[in-house]
Amino acid sequence: TIVSLREKAESIIQAELKKSTSTLKNLTPSQKQSIQNLTLSISDKILNDPILFLKKKADRPSLNTYLDVTRKLFNLDHNNGNMDNEDRLK
Amino acid sequence: TIVSLREKAESIIQAELKKSTSTLKNLTPSQKQSIQNLTLSISDKILNDPILFLKKKADRPSLNTYLDVTRKLFNLDHNNGNMDNEDRLK
Repeated sequence: TIVSLREKAESIIQAELKKSTSTLKNLTPSQKQSIQNLTLSISDKILNDPILFLKKKADRPSLNTYLDVTRKLFNLDHNNGNMDNEDRLK
Repeated sequence: TIVSLREKAESIIQAELKKSTSTLKNLTPSQKQSIQNLTLSISDKILNDPILFLKKKADRPSLNTYLDVTRKLFNLDHNNGNMDNEDRLK
């Protein structure tokens, strides 16, 4: 679930950066790099609390509920079939 | 909860943009604006699924569970006391 969350954020960033290529085309490579770092660090910070929370709950009986809700909230299962617990913990 | 989520994302973006001021200082105002738009749209997209999900569940008995878990995941209550249901729905 944590890996899926990160992958989802990553693909959103890539898609948005691609859309902005035209506005960013006059930037130097190092400026582009800073903007990419900026977007990555924003997305990391947004997802940091949910990820910390899930890690803290690992091994507790309530974890499965939280994992289920996280997958539902972020719509992480839309293109997967059933998964077992081991997959969901990822 | 939805409002708090958005506010939280907004404050993360502002903090990260501020940290990047030095790298971005050579940009034109319009380039800065595009970068701000880019970061906003990334954060909107990351939070879009959770927000849609919560809106879709509004009025269902399961909504409270989802709201509770969302608040826990995003650590939205760290500086608030108790809140009633009406507050949590925001």
